[in-house]
Amino acid sequence: MDIKDILCKVDHTLLDTCATWDKIRTICDEGMEFGTASVCIPPSFVKQAAEYVNGKIAICTVIGFPNGYNTTSVKCSEALEAVRDGASEIDMVINLGMVKEGRYSAVRDEIRAVRLACGDKILKVIIETCKLTEEEKIEMCRVVSESGADYIKTSTGFAEGGATREDISLMTANVSPELKIKAAGGIKTKKDAEDFLLLGADRLGTSRLISIAKNEAAEGAY
Amino acid sequence: MDIKDILCKVDHTLLDTCATWDKIRTICDEGMEFGTASVCIPPSFVKQAAEYVNGKIAICTVIGFPNGYNTTSVKCSEALEAVRDGASEIDMVINLGMVKEGRYSAVRDEIRAVRLACGDKILKVIIETCKLTEEEKIEMCRVVSESGADYIKTSTGFAEGGATREDISLMTANVSPELKIKAAGGIKTKKDAEDFLLLGADRLGTSRLISIAKNEAAEGAY
Repeated sequence: MDIKDILCKVDHTLLDTCATWDKIRTICDEGMEFGTASVCIPPSFVKQAAEYVNGKIAICTVIGFPNGYNTTSVKCSEALEAVRDGASEIDMVINLGMVKEGRYSAVRDEIRAVRLACGDKILKVIIETCKLTEEEKIEMCRVVSESGADYIKTSTGFAEGGATREDISLMTANVSPELKIKAAGGIKTKKDAEDFLLLGADRLGTSRLISIAKNEAAEGAY
Repeated sequence: MDIKDILCKVDHTLLDTCATWDKIRTICDEGMEFGTASVCIPPSFVKQAAEYVNGKIAICTVIGFPNGYNTTSVKCSEALEAVRDGASEIDMVINLGMVKEGRYSAVRDEIRAVRLACGDKILKVIIETCKLTEEEKIEMCRVVSESGADYIKTSTGFAEGGATREDISLMTANVSPELKIKAAGGIKTKKDAEDFLLLGADRLGTSRLISIAKNEAAEGAY
């Protein structure tokens, strides 16, 4: 697979708690240079990054992140503000406690509330697969399919596990045809990226593919 | 040190991302039975817990947690809602990126904004010591002392390190006399708790001391 065909599906991501504007600006520069789908950055940098990129690349940010146990109204406020600041893609974390309590309709209602707050922007829903049983993952494929979100996303990258090939296959088999899939967490190699895309992922959340592209470019392959 | 004299300084804590109401209710029951300073729980449980304990124990919650890179206005909204839901103690995480950029007055201004949002409730400021250099820790002792917060707190428990004896000593030496200290993250034994209190901590964030107290009670020592 050509690296360009992979990069256009990548949310070029920097969510380190200690990230500075210098590093975020580099992520923006790289995303624009290599044509990634978006840059995925912390909420407190959205406004500055949106002004900096001036429409040349989509800004993605995270809400209720990474623990997911904020109140619904705080998640909605966060989404509203992110959109106002210039984000056009919102990656929200579900309330995992609600899943563990079997309160799936409450989980769906929360996603729908954030969906409204996001307006016409892209909404991705992180289910943190490493915390869920197989049954819970399948239920969440149904819930997110019913919620009006655009994507179901595997992982925050802050829990003990990231995307697995098995989880992408499970999602492909269980989501509605309209719901897209984002694999995130632990995507380290071009092979990982290719595998996830071939298994049905439409987006990849990672910071590592640009350096692979840079290495290929240095070797004359890009 | 008598275990009772330790427990009255403990924020009995459950911040697991998958916590259910059953587990939170147990934390509330234990906190009330053993007389801890508060129970520290996720924002989405504050309202239910406040109704359940009905004033018999303080409810503490976390905002901008654990990554700290939410916008200031989202942190303020979160604090306002937590207080409205019944929290009387708010543990906020600073914006670590601002610290790494050396923007200490911006960090102080954000804490002051959250201070206003909290009204007369207790505000604790988590500086995530494991992410900071010694110089940054000392600067943050100064900044938090100037911010109007009630406590400086070591750790979220979600990063790679928790409270250390060295950090409590550093804080004791560098905060203003009015600012209290909370040690959190990795407090596992009665000895840990005693050491942190003797070094100058006024509060301890942990979930483990109640089970130690229960064991002592079972052995007839409580």
